[in-house]
Amino acid sequence: MSAAKQGHLMIIGGHEDRSEDMTILQRFIDLSGGSDANIVVISAASRVPDDMWAMYDQAFGTLGVENRVHLEMNSRLDTSNSAILDKLAAADGIFFTGGDQKRLLANIGGTPFDAAIHSAYVQRGACIAGTSAGASAMSGHMLATGRAGLQPEKGTVSLGAGLGLLHGVVIDQHFSERHRLARLLTVVAQNPYLLGVGIDEDTALIVKRGAGIEVCGQGAVTVLDGHAMFSTMADVSSGDCPQLVDVRLHLLPPGTHYSAGASNVPAALLPFLNTVTRAIADHEADHKADHKDRHEA
Amino acid sequence: MSAAKQGHLMIIGGHEDRSEDMTILQRFIDLSGGSDANIVVISAASRVPDDMWAMYDQAFGTLGVENRVHLEMNSRLDTSNSAILDKLAAADGIFFTGGDQKRLLANIGGTPFDAAIHSAYVQRGACIAGTSAGASAMSGHMLATGRAGLQPEKGTVSLGAGLGLLHGVVIDQHFSERHRLARLLTVVAQNPYLLGVGIDEDTALIVKRGAGIEVCGQGAVTVLDGHAMFSTMADVSSGDCPQLVDVRLHLLPPGTHYSAGASNVPAALLPFLNTVTRAIADHEADHKADHKDRHEA
Repeated sequence: MSAAKQGHLMIIGGHEDRSEDMTILQRFIDLSGGSDANIVVISAASRVPDDMWAMYDQAFGTLGVENRVHLEMNSRLDTSNSAILDKLAAADGIFFTGGDQKRLLANIGGTPFDAAIHSAYVQRGACIAGTSAGASAMSGHMLATGRAGLQPEKGTVSLGAGLGLLHGVVIDQHFSERHRLARLLTVVAQNPYLLGVGIDEDTALIVKRGAGIEVCGQGAVTVLDGHAMFSTMADVSSGDCPQLVDVRLHLLPPGTHYSAGASNVPAALLPFLNTVTRAIADHEADHKADHKDRHEA
Repeated sequence: MSAAKQGHLMIIGGHEDRSEDMTILQRFIDLSGGSDANIVVISAASRVPDDMWAMYDQAFGTLGVENRVHLEMNSRLDTSNSAILDKLAAADGIFFTGGDQKRLLANIGGTPFDAAIHSAYVQRGACIAGTSAGASAMSGHMLATGRAGLQPEKGTVSLGAGLGLLHGVVIDQHFSERHRLARLLTVVAQNPYLLGVGIDEDTALIVKRGAGIEVCGQGAVTVLDGHAMFSTMADVSSGDCPQLVDVRLHLLPPGTHYSAGASNVPAALLPFLNTVTRAIADHEADHKADHKDRHEA
């Protein structure tokens, strides 16, 4: 299980194949340590958690995972249930289903359960995967609501506090399929500090903690970097389309892989690569300290 | 009619309003010299040229244009018809309808009629407008065929020779409405020398010859600049999605206007502004020389 020791995030754009090739789910199992790994499924984003579990129970079963379990959380109280926390503490792979990322955060944000997920990733090197809403929930700043219009529109997206497993990015999913470029441009125009990351369906951005990135699946990962942009966002009226000049767009198809610090990384990709890899350790240290203070106070 | 002396291009993304506010069509009339101007409509891109003319006949009539005429071209022979060429020689405004840009070029490309359009623009300062296929046809390199998939795909777009009223760009239309970003990224990835220009419906990019640009209408103009990009296009297989890093994206909403050489132009926009304004005169001189050689030889 040496591959898992590093800790991985799998940020999946939704609709990953669950019955045919199952490329993404197989990769999740591999990064969790193989079919002997302990896999837990968290369906707290969904209003039909049992249906979600049934779907992944079948898929992971087909892929030969014996030790798979549903962490049922029917209320925020369940997040301090010691039986659930024990299962989480033994997990090699943690899978967040789709649903609504606001519901997920309302259920688990800031709880001992949330802290245990961070520990699993940072201290035990578990693989944390999230699809659709589970993907959006991973970053510190989370896309909470947003209209996917034809052009960017000031004031039509809002952010919330996500799980904070990575920072400096906002994640959108079903990206090409639901034509969400204008929405992600709106996020970046409103929040130029953040990089926009759009992930297509049946596609995953894999972050190897502190070490590198990889893209796998069928679609692509689109990155929008507005650090250098000229923007009229501050001056246009609510609902209007801003002028944006020099948004840097990166398109990363399956097979893309870069190691932090490697010499083959295109310079323009460094802000993204550094943000999702090297910066995590620092933010995590802060985050853990915060949690420690809060929960041990 | 001083406004018209400079020569303008109106590159319209299709579906311009023809019955309500008619912002785009009114602007075309203004740039042609007002309601007293001689307006000609060229429907040679369309397989239903009479329907096209009926539509614009009504719209321009409603807007008070008395001197409006349909230049009917039923074959390539008509392009040297002296009665048609006389009407074209008197035109203050020339409007290309939609249809198929390949059909338009097959009908008029390289003819005396084509040369007369260049003269109207460059020497007489006429306004040349084209919508949908008529917009795509304006550039020297013209988007001929292309699949609008979810991701860019190598080998799925092809270019042809357009009218050459501007150079260094490829124009796509119905851009946001038909979700053509991936297609335009494919164009730029295959042809990094060219800037991709995507124009939304009921929206026009106005080029004041040699002097500046403006955007009017309801949508936006998207520019993709791949000059600085890292790309794997040369190495991926046909049909595969390339990795693209550092494509510069500009989004220009209605109201955007920049003069060539002005101090307020964002640096990253200069390649686009210079390409569609200053470069034209040089290319035109070459183009005219070519035509002169060809037709006077």
